[in-house]
Amino acid sequence: MDPKQLLKEHITKTVKLSDDEFDEFFGYFTTESHKKGQYMITAGDRIDCEYFVLRGCIKTFYINDNLKMFVLQFAMPGYWASDYSALYGGSRATINIGCITDTEVLCLSNKGREEACKKIHHVEHFFRHRMTSEYVASQKRLLSTMNNDVKYRYEELITLFPELYNIVPKRLIAAYLGVSRETLYRLNNS
Amino acid sequence: MDPKQLLKEHITKTVKLSDDEFDEFFGYFTTESHKKGQYMITAGDRIDCEYFVLRGCIKTFYINDNLKMFVLQFAMPGYWASDYSALYGGSRATINIGCITDTEVLCLSNKGREEACKKIHHVEHFFRHRMTSEYVASQKRLLSTMNNDVKYRYEELITLFPELYNIVPKRLIAAYLGVSRETLYRLNNS
Repeated sequence: MDPKQLLKEHITKTVKLSDDEFDEFFGYFTTESHKKGQYMITAGDRIDCEYFVLRGCIKTFYINDNLKMFVLQFAMPGYWASDYSALYGGSRATINIGCITDTEVLCLSNKGREEACKKIHHVEHFFRHRMTSEYVASQKRLLSTMNNDVKYRYEELITLFPELYNIVPKRLIAAYLGVSRETLYRLNNS
Repeated sequence: MDPKQLLKEHITKTVKLSDDEFDEFFGYFTTESHKKGQYMITAGDRIDCEYFVLRGCIKTFYINDNLKMFVLQFAMPGYWASDYSALYGGSRATINIGCITDTEVLCLSNKGREEACKKIHHVEHFFRHRMTSEYVASQKRLLSTMNNDVKYRYEELITLFPELYNIVPKRLIAAYLGVSRETLYRLNNS
């Protein structure tokens, strides 16, 4: 499916834009292709884009002072990703985004999103709805991280995103759950 | 300060509403007073409101099957609180909101917020901005929970909200950090 159609289907789940509104909104996006292993955002970068995944799978991750990796998000087609703290706060990125597979994304700049939201009320509605869903999902994950053991959280992740099991290396799933690869290996074999 | 003025000052930090727009928006709110110890939301409730705190302090919390409490949020004047998953998803509440002190809040129903957002573009902008900030804060807390030890997270909380130290019992701060009261006591005396 072409990028425009994919984005349109995604947005129509939340709000109906007229053809003219959608054409104007789509004009704010550019397309990018990245190879497996490439970084789209590196900690320390000044960033100005959020990404809508068209094809492939990317990971949003943080590396601490002891070089331990924490995965915040896996984003597949139909998902958005960026360092939102840096994007909205104007600060430098503290997290990284890297490609788990070859990837194609649509990019929307900060300025582009704000302009589109101002001009087209329906677009502002879409982004409010999107941010609300992200917030609700983030709160659920926080509570699950505090309350549930790794086995429960692993099953929760695989139930929510069954396709991850085949695409994403187990060491990255371990880094999402905040455990070592060995712990995850024991879970898979228990 | 009166409720209308407090809400106006809060909203003006994000967006300038005309007097007519603000009056119309304020018409969607009602005022409620609650006593220390009262519950505003109980797990299992059907809920239809989000709350803007005018006076006092409330806690949003979850109690698991082993009766262990996890505090998700402390909300003081100028903060919003609800069970957003239930509010937006139409499901029953899974968390509770209780009053740490005598409390006065403004209530905005789901229907009221959606109507106001549809009628007044600036209001939709305000709520998009608000949800984005909540999402960014929630992601930061998730990362901090995964990456930092309790001592660091305790200092982070008290630096962000120094007033909590005097208002909130230590057992609730422990339940926010996901540790026992004894662990927090040791931190305070180390």
